[in-house]
Amino acid sequence: MSLYKELLEKIEKNTVTVGIIGLGYVGLPLAVTFARKGISVLGFEKSEKKAQSVNEGRNYIGDIEDDELTKVVHEKLLSATTDFTRIGECDAVIICVPTPLDKFKKPDMSYIEGACVDIGRNMKKGTFISLESTTYPTTTEDFMKPIIERESGMKEGEDFWLCFSPERVDPGNKNYKTENTPKVVGGLGEEAQKIALALYGKAIQHLYPVSSPRAAEMVKILENTYRLVNISLINEIALLAGKMDINIWEVIEAAKSKPYGFQAFYPGPGIGGHCIPLDPFYLEYIAKGFNFDLTMINTAGNINNLMPYRMMNKIAYALNRHKKPLNGSTVLFLGVAYKPDIDDARESPALLVMEHVAKKGAHVMYHDPYIPEVIDEHGHLWKGVQLTDEIISSADCVVFTTNHSCFDVDHIVEKAQLVVDTRNAVKQVHIEDGKVFKL
Amino acid sequence: MSLYKELLEKIEKNTVTVGIIGLGYVGLPLAVTFARKGISVLGFEKSEKKAQSVNEGRNYIGDIEDDELTKVVHEKLLSATTDFTRIGECDAVIICVPTPLDKFKKPDMSYIEGACVDIGRNMKKGTFISLESTTYPTTTEDFMKPIIERESGMKEGEDFWLCFSPERVDPGNKNYKTENTPKVVGGLGEEAQKIALALYGKAIQHLYPVSSPRAAEMVKILENTYRLVNISLINEIALLAGKMDINIWEVIEAAKSKPYGFQAFYPGPGIGGHCIPLDPFYLEYIAKGFNFDLTMINTAGNINNLMPYRMMNKIAYALNRHKKPLNGSTVLFLGVAYKPDIDDARESPALLVMEHVAKKGAHVMYHDPYIPEVIDEHGHLWKGVQLTDEIISSADCVVFTTNHSCFDVDHIVEKAQLVVDTRNAVKQVHIEDGKVFKL
Repeated sequence: MSLYKELLEKIEKNTVTVGIIGLGYVGLPLAVTFARKGISVLGFEKSEKKAQSVNEGRNYIGDIEDDELTKVVHEKLLSATTDFTRIGECDAVIICVPTPLDKFKKPDMSYIEGACVDIGRNMKKGTFISLESTTYPTTTEDFMKPIIERESGMKEGEDFWLCFSPERVDPGNKNYKTENTPKVVGGLGEEAQKIALALYGKAIQHLYPVSSPRAAEMVKILENTYRLVNISLINEIALLAGKMDINIWEVIEAAKSKPYGFQAFYPGPGIGGHCIPLDPFYLEYIAKGFNFDLTMINTAGNINNLMPYRMMNKIAYALNRHKKPLNGSTVLFLGVAYKPDIDDARESPALLVMEHVAKKGAHVMYHDPYIPEVIDEHGHLWKGVQLTDEIISSADCVVFTTNHSCFDVDHIVEKAQLVVDTRNAVKQVHIEDGKVFKL
Repeated sequence: MSLYKELLEKIEKNTVTVGIIGLGYVGLPLAVTFARKGISVLGFEKSEKKAQSVNEGRNYIGDIEDDELTKVVHEKLLSATTDFTRIGECDAVIICVPTPLDKFKKPDMSYIEGACVDIGRNMKKGTFISLESTTYPTTTEDFMKPIIERESGMKEGEDFWLCFSPERVDPGNKNYKTENTPKVVGGLGEEAQKIALALYGKAIQHLYPVSSPRAAEMVKILENTYRLVNISLINEIALLAGKMDINIWEVIEAAKSKPYGFQAFYPGPGIGGHCIPLDPFYLEYIAKGFNFDLTMINTAGNINNLMPYRMMNKIAYALNRHKKPLNGSTVLFLGVAYKPDIDDARESPALLVMEHVAKKGAHVMYHDPYIPEVIDEHGHLWKGVQLTDEIISSADCVVFTTNHSCFDVDHIVEKAQLVVDTRNAVKQVHIEDGKVFKL
């Protein structure tokens, strides 16, 4: 039997072993989703701590039910290892590693490269390989394929198959999890696509096949570029609206009454998280290789980069009304998570605002019920404070940076001397009153 | 009884007379909508021809059923006049005049100004005045109010009331017409808002009140700026996708499988119509008065301005593959309407592409089943041709510029020597084949 048919048969009979490289917020939910369907999953992790946690059935990802992880580990459907030579035990390998930007905002492909080297050196013939990490179009064909071929001495399309299928994980989304979020699948060639659809079809309810990996790569970047551009647009208009004595949140709600052709985005102190502030710049990077400038992404990026400075200015202006300088004032930030009701501070704009304000000599504190401490990009450890009435009233300025639904906004405003609200937490105030200043 | 209570009572008893200035694609449907509810409407038009047409019950607007217009004219609920002194007969006056850009892309406020002068000189005390034309925030308060007060010698809030309530007409939309499209209402002051809600509530099913005219002005511009920015974004990405051998339409369809946080926009030869290419620049204009640059609108505008040139290049490159220059070639454009299945060529990008191609020495023809002839911005009259097999096959290049659903695409492609498809009319072609070249 051909390698191709053998693999399809294993998938059909549920005897396939799936390797998942990277057990983070994408890989671990995917591993659990496969395992719940009775498929044997072997997770690969560089972090000894995470691998051990999985093997002990201890969950560390918000979007997974603790019980579900424990169950599939006990049933021996899921285990984790730091030994990447065991990739040879897998029939399919799915890569879920980070794709960050380096400090010059250039794509950092080292995680994908590392995974490809590990796969190339250890895989057996007839392995199916799928990349889920967001990256620029052409990565699968022009970046992954040569590395794997070089390291393995095998040939794509004969000895192994490649696919790009972007993760669409939205941390904290109560309705859409890995299993019921439609999944775009772009196999390289017909056999790869058939294997991809058969394999993912075991775990995911709706698959959306596209004609090539590069089309699938573009899909994910388009989705997140759309979000970056629209959040940047509304941030820029919000700053103008403030100057014009227009409450931008009222305007957005009213625009939503249009029953077609409008989708609402909301302003804030900047864009955070692991996707939206990063993904579009992967496209901008590859575009330069085609001698093409993506001016919309560039402009949107500039607006986003400026937002934390603008928020610092907002805080300075508010303090100034109270005849106080930033230097020496105490500023309490509420929320460092990049979106409400989650415990993730990656790329959080709150941290950037805190940093700027601290640099200007302010005494900075923060409180976040979900994040007791956090390390910023310079390696500085911030420790959160308890949210007591005394802390609130002693701060010269209290800043809402994340709209956690558990914040007792009325109480905080009552106790505070001065409030800067970057998230429309204080609904009843138009643009500003003596005490509350809105973005 | 106070003027205010008197007006409210007239509205309640359906004895109010509503004047509508400007009987175009906004004013005439609004006039018919009021009249159908039994309210007496007097339309004001500078064009003798349009006024006469209305008075003879002859419809000239696509979104109105001919019978409905005829009926309300016969019932004497609607009549039209060119005599603006008759504004004095009206209890409420609604302004639906154009707000174009001049050739330096600066707001042309002359129509609003003219309407305000006419109103100020002719209205009686106790008149309610509402502006529906899209314009920059602060227009109602800072532009209209002083003109009307100066011309009338009356005082806003005492002798007359002001409101801004943006039109949301989407020509050709089968589901949402004037009556059932939710309407944002921003009266200046409490009395104005109450009158506005009572009056519009007679004709429109859903009203959405906001706190001020300037908020209402911003709502409409936000809606259309959102569209300009997103169409420009997808146009820019589409050009890159073509270079990368990615079919952008496939990508957009796949991105639509994301069940949240994405709205699809489609590329094309540029943005046309009376709203999207214009409205955002009203906001950009007023922003400069606040010393504020709207970089997203500026960037989006630049992309849009370049699209017709880029489409000319696309046509030139396609001809070049066939070893033909633009100069001396015959190029047939299919569709000059700015969107499918309507008869409106205002700001149509097709005309701009035609112009550029003609300037380079091509022999340009067009066919549009809905637009037999059209005058471009330089006053040049273009006459459409019949779509015969002979015409199609004799053209060196056939260009799809509007996606009218009546086009028999397969037949046209079969007969044509060469096709440039800016609208994904030819679904089965990826990016290009020997004959068809896609945006």
